[in-house]
Amino acid sequence: MSAEAFDAVDVIVAKRDGHRLSDAQIDWVLDAYTRGVVADEQMSALAMAILLNGMDRAEIARWTAAMIASGERMDFSGLSRPTSDKHSTGGVGDKITLPLAPLVAVFGVAVPQLSGRGLGHTGGTLDKLESIPGWRASLSNDEMLRQLEEVGAVICAAGSGLAPADRKLYALRDVTGTVEAIPLIASSIMSKKIAEGTGSLVLDVKVGSGAFMKDVDRARELAQTMVALGTDAGVRTVALLTDMSTPLGLTAGNALEVRESVEVLAGGGPADVVELTVALAREMLAGAGRPDADPAAALADGRAMDVWRSMIAAQGGDPDATLPVARETEQVLAEADGVLTALDAYAVGIAAWRLGAGRARKEDPVQAGAGVQLHAKPGDRVRAGQPLMTLHTDTPERFGRAREALVGAVSISADAAPERGPLVLERVAD
Amino acid sequence: MSAEAFDAVDVIVAKRDGHRLSDAQIDWVLDAYTRGVVADEQMSALAMAILLNGMDRAEIARWTAAMIASGERMDFSGLSRPTSDKHSTGGVGDKITLPLAPLVAVFGVAVPQLSGRGLGHTGGTLDKLESIPGWRASLSNDEMLRQLEEVGAVICAAGSGLAPADRKLYALRDVTGTVEAIPLIASSIMSKKIAEGTGSLVLDVKVGSGAFMKDVDRARELAQTMVALGTDAGVRTVALLTDMSTPLGLTAGNALEVRESVEVLAGGGPADVVELTVALAREMLAGAGRPDADPAAALADGRAMDVWRSMIAAQGGDPDATLPVARETEQVLAEADGVLTALDAYAVGIAAWRLGAGRARKEDPVQAGAGVQLHAKPGDRVRAGQPLMTLHTDTPERFGRAREALVGAVSISADAAPERGPLVLERVAD
Repeated sequence: MSAEAFDAVDVIVAKRDGHRLSDAQIDWVLDAYTRGVVADEQMSALAMAILLNGMDRAEIARWTAAMIASGERMDFSGLSRPTSDKHSTGGVGDKITLPLAPLVAVFGVAVPQLSGRGLGHTGGTLDKLESIPGWRASLSNDEMLRQLEEVGAVICAAGSGLAPADRKLYALRDVTGTVEAIPLIASSIMSKKIAEGTGSLVLDVKVGSGAFMKDVDRARELAQTMVALGTDAGVRTVALLTDMSTPLGLTAGNALEVRESVEVLAGGGPADVVELTVALAREMLAGAGRPDADPAAALADGRAMDVWRSMIAAQGGDPDATLPVARETEQVLAEADGVLTALDAYAVGIAAWRLGAGRARKEDPVQAGAGVQLHAKPGDRVRAGQPLMTLHTDTPERFGRAREALVGAVSISADAAPERGPLVLERVAD
Repeated sequence: MSAEAFDAVDVIVAKRDGHRLSDAQIDWVLDAYTRGVVADEQMSALAMAILLNGMDRAEIARWTAAMIASGERMDFSGLSRPTSDKHSTGGVGDKITLPLAPLVAVFGVAVPQLSGRGLGHTGGTLDKLESIPGWRASLSNDEMLRQLEEVGAVICAAGSGLAPADRKLYALRDVTGTVEAIPLIASSIMSKKIAEGTGSLVLDVKVGSGAFMKDVDRARELAQTMVALGTDAGVRTVALLTDMSTPLGLTAGNALEVRESVEVLAGGGPADVVELTVALAREMLAGAGRPDADPAAALADGRAMDVWRSMIAAQGGDPDATLPVARETEQVLAEADGVLTALDAYAVGIAAWRLGAGRARKEDPVQAGAGVQLHAKPGDRVRAGQPLMTLHTDTPERFGRAREALVGAVSISADAAPERGPLVLERVAD
């Protein structure tokens, strides 16, 4: 990729000493790392120096371009429809992709959602859809393009050809305490989205206990960095900062979340899931040149459900199949009368994960039916002894550790007002 | 070593976020790294976080103790003499160990100098002594103790049993841009000196272009850190900051430096080498309880030379043997009349290295006769056309690259005063 050769130590020392990396240094170090010429221990030292000393907008753009150049690019330009994609930084109960992709496709926009499996306390979109009997995540590029042309929406596994440097670097960051570097997070996300070739992109940057970004300042910085990267690469990009202090909707778990998504597609479902789905759909439609579309109407009148059914069927799934249910349930009860003022997203995410909805290692299986179902949300009035949550699992020995995760997660106040905070906190555009 | 187990990422993240590491974290991470449980890429990220965020005095002391605990300790308590050791951070033409060890031994102090080979532009003490026919660097612990008891001075190779964690960590730092962290430099040096078991220690911390520390503030910080470490471990420790902007003495190269050392032991030699040898000897003798000893007299009257001859002979060397001479020489001439105001130590070090005196990789051989001989020092008056240096090598194709290293290394001023700066800049004690 680069004709010039550098010494890895010189590149590390430059960033360590607070200098900016040149384009040629960035191109070389990522290419050499992908080829194994720069060793893991050198890249991890560089990642730590980037985390602590930062990169400027031009450096991050070049870093992202070099990650894209490490692999293949997709091309949606042959489609008759404009493309729009959405990326969420991950949250508890975040099933928005499921109703959103078919909803946006209703309006003639192609939605290619290349998704992943879950690791840790936030679920993975593919894990959720795999609870639908017959549904398969892997499509060839040709199958994906045909489905985008014919159905309009695809949710499938990302191939390994996009930004392989990112794949290698992400695994390294995970074990070296360097995940939290905003330049590296932003370039990791955006390299795959830009390589994928979408025309426009909406980012859902989560803020709060259940999210990667715990405070709004860091979330805004990440959003601004990603919007700048998208803009510089010619992708119309907008970000919404959205609340993740409490789970989205009333479910966290694979089949539980599919069931809730189908409720939304049927015109019902929890108000917050509907609100965020519609807000993101409006942004995606505006980015794809459909600013006048009315996504709320397409949820209400069944058009989004029609696309959903076609989308699931096109990937071998049976949209009418009965979804798996966990073998055992237990309830968590309210301990006092009052207004529920907090129901911590992170704690619920960990509980769902421990019940079997998530995995600790890449190769672990997940339970389709496991998870947490909520019966009240912050702002609701509750009474002592009333069920607040139902825990679902196939393996009841997991209830104990799930309950441990929930210790301190619920706050009930006798004199608080029954009100909810805003869901969409800020909008970030270039 | 530690019963408690940690997660490597948690330790890295703690230091990354500016927290101090607990004793248990430090014990665990160094033990786990030595055992291969903490991977190189994790330790390099931690090293970068330490470099950028620092460690406090107690952390550095614990880190050093954990490195010592990774290996064996030596014990000089059975000797009838007190022990004193010297460590130099390395400079160009720094042959001080050669006259210093026998000089201090004259006064009944045992001097165990565990030394290394050179890598890069500063020479290694063992490389220098190996230019003496028959001399061998490797001694068993018993041989070393016997020689300390009988002769008083030993200069030999450090065994691999002292602080193996340091050995592994140093090799990692070398390729990851993390050599320059003062806590890691200090603990690397002091772990070996403390494990070696010396009763007192004098540190020669070099400052200037030919030294690891280019400015006096960083050198002072390193000196203070090491003095504190020694003091906390019960070793009487003093440091001198000494000038390394120009080479020490008139030679840089293996046999060339032995020859100059023998001149000093014979009561002659360059004034700066004599001055520093005597200054360090006074500190070592004071630390070993001999504050009234007169080392200058022992150079002048041949007592130091007697110990030198015994020391060389005890390790198989012939003190009367003719030293190797390089096959080819070339001269570098003064380009103007005036006062020599600068003769850059780093440039001379690189030139000597390129002529064959040093090695680029551990396994490379060195040339015994190669190096640079100076005919003038800063402060001397010179005339255009006069020889300033003689370059020595067995492989004359090296002259060209050696001369390249010397471009810009010499400054001659028509109107400067013929004066020299001080050699000992500061003294640091706890």
